[in-house]
Amino acid sequence: MRHHGAVRTVDLNGDCGESFGRWSLGDDEALLTVLTSANVACGFHAGDPSTLRRTVRAAAGGGVAVGAQVSYRDLAGFGRRFVDVPAAELTDEVLYQLGALAGFARAAGTRVSYLKPHGALYHAVGHHEQQARAVLAAVVEFDPGMAVLGLPGSLFLRLAEEAGVAVRREAFADRAYRADGTLVPRSQPGAVLHDPAAIAARAVRIVVDGVVLADDGSAVEVRCDSLCVHGDTPGAVAIAREVRAALEAAGVTVAAPGGG
Amino acid sequence: MRHHGAVRTVDLNGDCGESFGRWSLGDDEALLTVLTSANVACGFHAGDPSTLRRTVRAAAGGGVAVGAQVSYRDLAGFGRRFVDVPAAELTDEVLYQLGALAGFARAAGTRVSYLKPHGALYHAVGHHEQQARAVLAAVVEFDPGMAVLGLPGSLFLRLAEEAGVAVRREAFADRAYRADGTLVPRSQPGAVLHDPAAIAARAVRIVVDGVVLADDGSAVEVRCDSLCVHGDTPGAVAIAREVRAALEAAGVTVAAPGGG
Amino acid sequence: MRHHGAVRTVDLNGDCGESFGRWSLGDDEALLTVLTSANVACGFHAGDPSTLRRTVRAAAGGGVAVGAQVSYRDLAGFGRRFVDVPAAELTDEVLYQLGALAGFARAAGTRVSYLKPHGALYHAVGHHEQQARAVLAAVVEFDPGMAVLGLPGSLFLRLAEEAGVAVRREAFADRAYRADGTLVPRSQPGAVLHDPAAIAARAVRIVVDGVVLADDGSAVEVRCDSLCVHGDTPGAVAIAREVRAALEAAGVTVAAPGGG
Amino acid sequence: MRHHGAVRTVDLNGDCGESFGRWSLGDDEALLTVLTSANVACGFHAGDPSTLRRTVRAAAGGGVAVGAQVSYRDLAGFGRRFVDVPAAELTDEVLYQLGALAGFARAAGTRVSYLKPHGALYHAVGHHEQQARAVLAAVVEFDPGMAVLGLPGSLFLRLAEEAGVAVRREAFADRAYRADGTLVPRSQPGAVLHDPAAIAARAVRIVVDGVVLADDGSAVEVRCDSLCVHGDTPGAVAIAREVRAALEAAGVTVAAPGGG
Repeated sequence: MRHHGAVRTVDLNGDCGESFGRWSLGDDEALLTVLTSANVACGFHAGDPSTLRRTVRAAAGGGVAVGAQVSYRDLAGFGRRFVDVPAAELTDEVLYQLGALAGFARAAGTRVSYLKPHGALYHAVGHHEQQARAVLAAVVEFDPGMAVLGLPGSLFLRLAEEAGVAVRREAFADRAYRADGTLVPRSQPGAVLHDPAAIAARAVRIVVDGVVLADDGSAVEVRCDSLCVHGDTPGAVAIAREVRAALEAAGVTVAAPGGG
Repeated sequence: MRHHGAVRTVDLNGDCGESFGRWSLGDDEALLTVLTSANVACGFHAGDPSTLRRTVRAAAGGGVAVGAQVSYRDLAGFGRRFVDVPAAELTDEVLYQLGALAGFARAAGTRVSYLKPHGALYHAVGHHEQQARAVLAAVVEFDPGMAVLGLPGSLFLRLAEEAGVAVRREAFADRAYRADGTLVPRSQPGAVLHDPAAIAARAVRIVVDGVVLADDGSAVEVRCDSLCVHGDTPGAVAIAREVRAALEAAGVTVAAPGGG
Repeated sequence: MRHHGAVRTVDLNGDCGESFGRWSLGDDEALLTVLTSANVACGFHAGDPSTLRRTVRAAAGGGVAVGAQVSYRDLAGFGRRFVDVPAAELTDEVLYQLGALAGFARAAGTRVSYLKPHGALYHAVGHHEQQARAVLAAVVEFDPGMAVLGLPGSLFLRLAEEAGVAVRREAFADRAYRADGTLVPRSQPGAVLHDPAAIAARAVRIVVDGVVLADDGSAVEVRCDSLCVHGDTPGAVAIAREVRAALEAAGVTVAAPGGG
Repeated sequence: MRHHGAVRTVDLNGDCGESFGRWSLGDDEALLTVLTSANVACGFHAGDPSTLRRTVRAAAGGGVAVGAQVSYRDLAGFGRRFVDVPAAELTDEVLYQLGALAGFARAAGTRVSYLKPHGALYHAVGHHEQQARAVLAAVVEFDPGMAVLGLPGSLFLRLAEEAGVAVRREAFADRAYRADGTLVPRSQPGAVLHDPAAIAARAVRIVVDGVVLADDGSAVEVRCDSLCVHGDTPGAVAIAREVRAALEAAGVTVAAPGGG
C-alpha cells in the first residue's frame, strides 16, 4: 500500500514503437521524455524489429520502464479488431511477442517488466475469460515477476490477482467516466477530453484524491497505479507534458512501480 | 580436439518446425527421433508460434539441441529468395527471431544453443559480407556463447571465427561435391543422391575418414562437425535413420556438441 | 424452378487453391475432376498468386466453374477465426479478392461466376447482418450477375435475394442435420459422416427427394442447388467421386448452374 | 511523335495510395490536384483495400489517370529491397496486383491505363532481363492496351517496345543527371534538388527543349513523356504545384497520354 485513500506516486504509461517499415506513427522521442513506462509494440499490430530496437534503446536510455504491448496478429487492422483466436494459440502468440521484445530489452540492458494488451485485445480481456486467461498464461510462463496493466475491476486484473501476477490499475485523465466507474464509449459525444488544463487538473484529482468526476456530475472513486497518456499527435505529447507537470506541482512522484 | 584427421563424434542437424497455421510440412515427430540438433524455424519463413512451442518442446523432450533457423522475412517465398536487406535491419530481424524462439526454449526448459541461416540467407552469408556480418552481430548481441552452423571455408564461418563465435562445420552426405570441396548446384544432374545405402556409406566416410568422393572421382577432404539430414518427406526420414544407424555401427558417437 | 419437390440437377462445389508458397493443401488435380464448381481461395486465407493461376487454369480447362472463396485477411488462422472487421473495410477486402481472382480467370479464358465466403466469414454472414451486407455490397459492385453460395434459410441468402443477387443453396451430404434443418456442430459426436456409401446415398436422397434424415430420425426438407464436397484428404476425394457416381446413377445431372 | 525535338505536352505522374491500415503516407488529396497520372499502390508494398478504393475514386473524380504501381511482396521493406523472385512467380504477383486494382478502378468508373514498377522492382527491371520480361508478361496478359512507364533507354522500355507495349519515358526534374543521361545515385551529394524554382525551371527545359543540364555542366538530351513528381511531404506537393504552373506558363499542355 502506498497510502490511504489515494496514491501519491503514479506511473505514466503510453504507447510507443508503433511505426512499421516506411510508416511512422507518434513522436516517440518526445513522448519518452514524459513517460515512466513505455508500452512497446511487439510486431503483431505494429513495430518492425528495427523500431523495437530503437524504441527499447530510447526507453532504457531515458530510464523509462519497458512493457510489452501485445496484440492480435493483425497489421492491417492495427490490432483494433477482435479476433476470435483459440486460447492456446493466443498464449503462444503472446509468448512469441514477449520473447521477441525481450531480446531487444536485453540488448539495451533492460528487461520487459510488464505487459499491456493492445487495442481490441485490451477490450477483450476485460470480459472474455478464455482470452484473458490465455494472455496471463503467457505472462506466468515467461516471467511470473512481470506485472500486467489493465482496467481496475476488469476480469483481466481479477484473474491476474488470482494467478499471483502483479497488477497495475490504469486510469485515463482524458476520458469521460460514468457513475459506475466505466469509461464512456468513444462513439459518444464528450467521451474524450481535449482541453490540456482540464485533463491535467483531472489527472491530479485522480491521483491525489482517488476520485474522478463522472458525466452525471457525481464523484467516482478511481484506484490508479498508472495514468495512460497518448503521443500519437504533437498535441497529445503537449497534453502529456502538462499532465506530468501538474502532477509534480501537486507533489506527486511520477515513477514506474518498483523502479521500472 | 576430437581426434586426428577426422572426427569420431558427429552432430546430426535437420530443419524442423516448418509448418504454418493450417499447413503442415515435414514429419517433425519422426525426424526428432533421429536428430541431435533441431534447426527450428522462427516465424519469418515458416513456423507460427504454436508450431514453435510444439517443436521446441518435442526437441527438448527428446534431448535434441535447439537451434534457430533464421530467415529473411518471406513467408510467401519460404525464405528461398534472396532479399537485399540492409545490414542493420537484418541484424534486427535476426535478433527478433532469436528472442521469439528463446521464449519458447525457456518455457520448455532448454535454450537456443546455435543458429543456422535458412534458405537464401544461408547462401547469401557464404559470400555477402554485409549480410554475414549482420547475422553474426545479432548472435554476438543475443548470446556470444551461441554457435553458428555453416559451410566449411565459407565467409560466414571465417567471419564468425574472427568474431570469436563458435562454428560448426556442416557436410551433406546426400549431395555431390566438386573437387574443390564445393557442392554441385542442385540445378545440375546428379547433384542430389537418393540411394539410402550410398548416402549412409558416404556419411560414414565423411565422418570417419574426413573425406568425400567428388564428382570427378577424386577424394576431397571434408571437415565436418555436423551432418545435415532432411525430413520433409517420409523417405527423407528413412534415409536419416539409415545414416544414423550406419554411423553408430561404425563406432561414431552421434551427439550435439557440448551436450546440446 | 427446375422441377417439383426436389432438384434433378445439382452442382458439386469444393474448396480449391488452398496451397500457399511452399505449403501444399488438398489434391486439387483430383478434386477438379469431380467438381462442377471450384471455390478458389483468393490469397487472404490461402492461395498465393501462382496457386491462383494454376487452380483457375485447371478449373477452366476442365469446364469447372470458378468461384471466389473470399475470406478474412488471416493467413495464420486460415480464415477460421472470426474477425470483427468494420463493414466498409470488409466490402473493400472482398472487392480486392474478387478483382485479383478475376485477373487470373480472364487470363484463363473464364470468369468468376459466384462467391462463397470461407471459414469464419461463412459462419458470420449467416447471422451477422453488417458483415453479410458488406460481402453482398462487394458482389453487387463487382458484378451483379454473380451468384452467392450459402446455407438455405441463412441471413446471407435472404439478404442476397433482397439485393437481387442470385443465390445457390448449399447442402452437405457428410454432415448430420438437426430436425430444424441446421447442421449438428462439428464439436458434437456424429456431426461428420465418414462412410462413403452412406454419404453417397444421403447425397442422392437430398438431391432427388429434397430430404435428409435428421439426427432424431425425422425427415427434414432440404432445398439444395449445390452439394459441398471436400478434397483436403485423399479419402475425401474418393468420397466425392462416389457421391458424383451415385448421383449420376440415380439420373441426376451434375452441372454448374447456367453452364458455369 | 508529338513534335520536333521536344514534347509540348507532358504527363505528370506521382505515387499515391501508399497508406496502409493505421498508417498514413503522403497527402494524396493535395497531390491528386496536381497529377495527371496517379501511380496507385496495389497492396504489396503499401495500400490496403480501403486505401485503394479511396485513391482510385479520388483520381477518377479528378480526371487523373489510374496506373498500377506494382511491387515485390514486401510490406515491411516498402518494396525497396530487391527480392530475387523467380520470373513466373513475379508475373503472377504482378497479375494479382493488376486485377485487384482493376476491381476498384471499375467500381470508380475508370480503368487501369498503365503500370509503373515501384521501388526496387523499378530499378531491377532496368537491367534484370528475367524480371523485366516477367512484369511485361503480366501486362500483355492483363491488357495489351496498357502502357508502361520507365526510364528512357532502360532494358524495361526496350523490351516493352519489342513486345508491342506502349511506353512512357519518364524524367525527373528534381534529380541530378550525369552526362550519359543516367541519374546521379541518391547516395551522392547533390543527387536530389530541393529548390522549387530551380526544379520548375528544369522541368520546363526538359519538356520544352528536351534537354537537362548534367552535373558536369553539359546539356544532355532527355526524351520525356511523363515527369515524376513527389507528394510524400507537404513541401513536395508545393514543388509539384510549382512545376505544373511553370509548365503551363511555358505553354505546355499537362495531360495524361490518350486522355488518361
